[in-house]
Amino acid sequence: MKIGILGTSMVGQAISGKLAELGHDVMVGTRDVAKTLAHTEPHPYGFPAFSVWQKEHASVKLGTFADAAKHGEVVFNATNGTGSLEALKLAGESNINGKVLVDIANPLDFSQGNPPSLSVSNTDSLGEQIQRAYPNVKVVKTLNTVTAFLMVNPGLVGNADHTLFVCGNDTEAKAQVTEWLKGWFGWKDVIDLGDITNARGTEMLLPIWIRLWGALQTGMFNFKVVR
Amino acid sequence: MKIGILGTSMVGQAISGKLAELGHDVMVGTRDVAKTLAHTEPHPYGFPAFSVWQKEHASVKLGTFADAAKHGEVVFNATNGTGSLEALKLAGESNINGKVLVDIANPLDFSQGNPPSLSVSNTDSLGEQIQRAYPNVKVVKTLNTVTAFLMVNPGLVGNADHTLFVCGNDTEAKAQVTEWLKGWFGWKDVIDLGDITNARGTEMLLPIWIRLWGALQTGMFNFKVVR
Repeated sequence: MKIGILGTSMVGQAISGKLAELGHDVMVGTRDVAKTLAHTEPHPYGFPAFSVWQKEHASVKLGTFADAAKHGEVVFNATNGTGSLEALKLAGESNINGKVLVDIANPLDFSQGNPPSLSVSNTDSLGEQIQRAYPNVKVVKTLNTVTAFLMVNPGLVGNADHTLFVCGNDTEAKAQVTEWLKGWFGWKDVIDLGDITNARGTEMLLPIWIRLWGALQTGMFNFKVVR
Repeated sequence: MKIGILGTSMVGQAISGKLAELGHDVMVGTRDVAKTLAHTEPHPYGFPAFSVWQKEHASVKLGTFADAAKHGEVVFNATNGTGSLEALKLAGESNINGKVLVDIANPLDFSQGNPPSLSVSNTDSLGEQIQRAYPNVKVVKTLNTVTAFLMVNPGLVGNADHTLFVCGNDTEAKAQVTEWLKGWFGWKDVIDLGDITNARGTEMLLPIWIRLWGALQTGMFNFKVVR
């Protein structure tokens, strides 16, 4: 399957690496290809520069946001949440219209320091902002509540006995994404919260996620909804 | 132990009932004792009016917010979050100063309908507002992320194999509350998130909690932090 991933950072690398490994035809999109390729230093969080990472994942192509969006039958938004609307603008509405957009981004605002607040929350969400801006795109919000490596390999923690959430306005798109989450990545417990306004709920999990990351000294954890 | 519980609603009933059962000397506080006793109809959510409930829990005393706060060596804030600051004002600073205040309240704002938003969030929290208003009170935020019956009986779901959070500025108070949570109520996994600013994290769990309540058609669930 042809898949476009917007974003070259840790989430983009994790998702595109896993999908390429599964044999999909993956193109990652970035704002400025030359600039992305020029970076070689590891990110402060420890993951490699895309240019270095790509050497080990030669089948993953790199293009502009527009190239990757056009390439994908499905598109993943793995950009920083505060830059997502700008990235999607560069991707181009005509390149994403009618497609499923898996929105993984979180609107983390580090401008006032750490821990970050959310740049949109409570009475709105990034997922809703994206859906409003692109009414013909099938936005499915998911995966934003776990760290990158867990997204594509939930078995790394507690035998994958923990929970993922999906929400979105298009029922078929959600069912399709849920099938991918289970089949491609190995998720077992996926709860459908309803329409895209429920992105408020999953994005507002981030403040406690970040605090748990600090308290546990690791991002390798996830919430299980015990019921 | 002498314990004061502010709030006669479902949470106040659950906490005070359990503590009385354990043999503690419990007084519940309300704004207007005569008015509270005059109510006999069940609440729309299904729990009984306090006056009816009290007949089965005769050892639980009822007084004003000030009476209950004065009575308690420790005080529980089980009021509605949007009314908590007002309730504490009526309780009286001199009646709570120096004491541990277990803050269970959530700032749920139903004014725009259901699901509610939060009246304070993201860059502040109710826990912080209370701590700022009463700097000599040892505010410990906890229990606000589960439904009332689970608070005092976590074994009702998944053999109590799920997680509770505490936060607050006073380390000793947090350790004491954690001991009570385990000893009185049966909590097994209690994570200390740090100071009271972490109440932003636990209060911002409510938006997804409420949505899960809708999706699962029950409030009898809790988050387990799988790590």
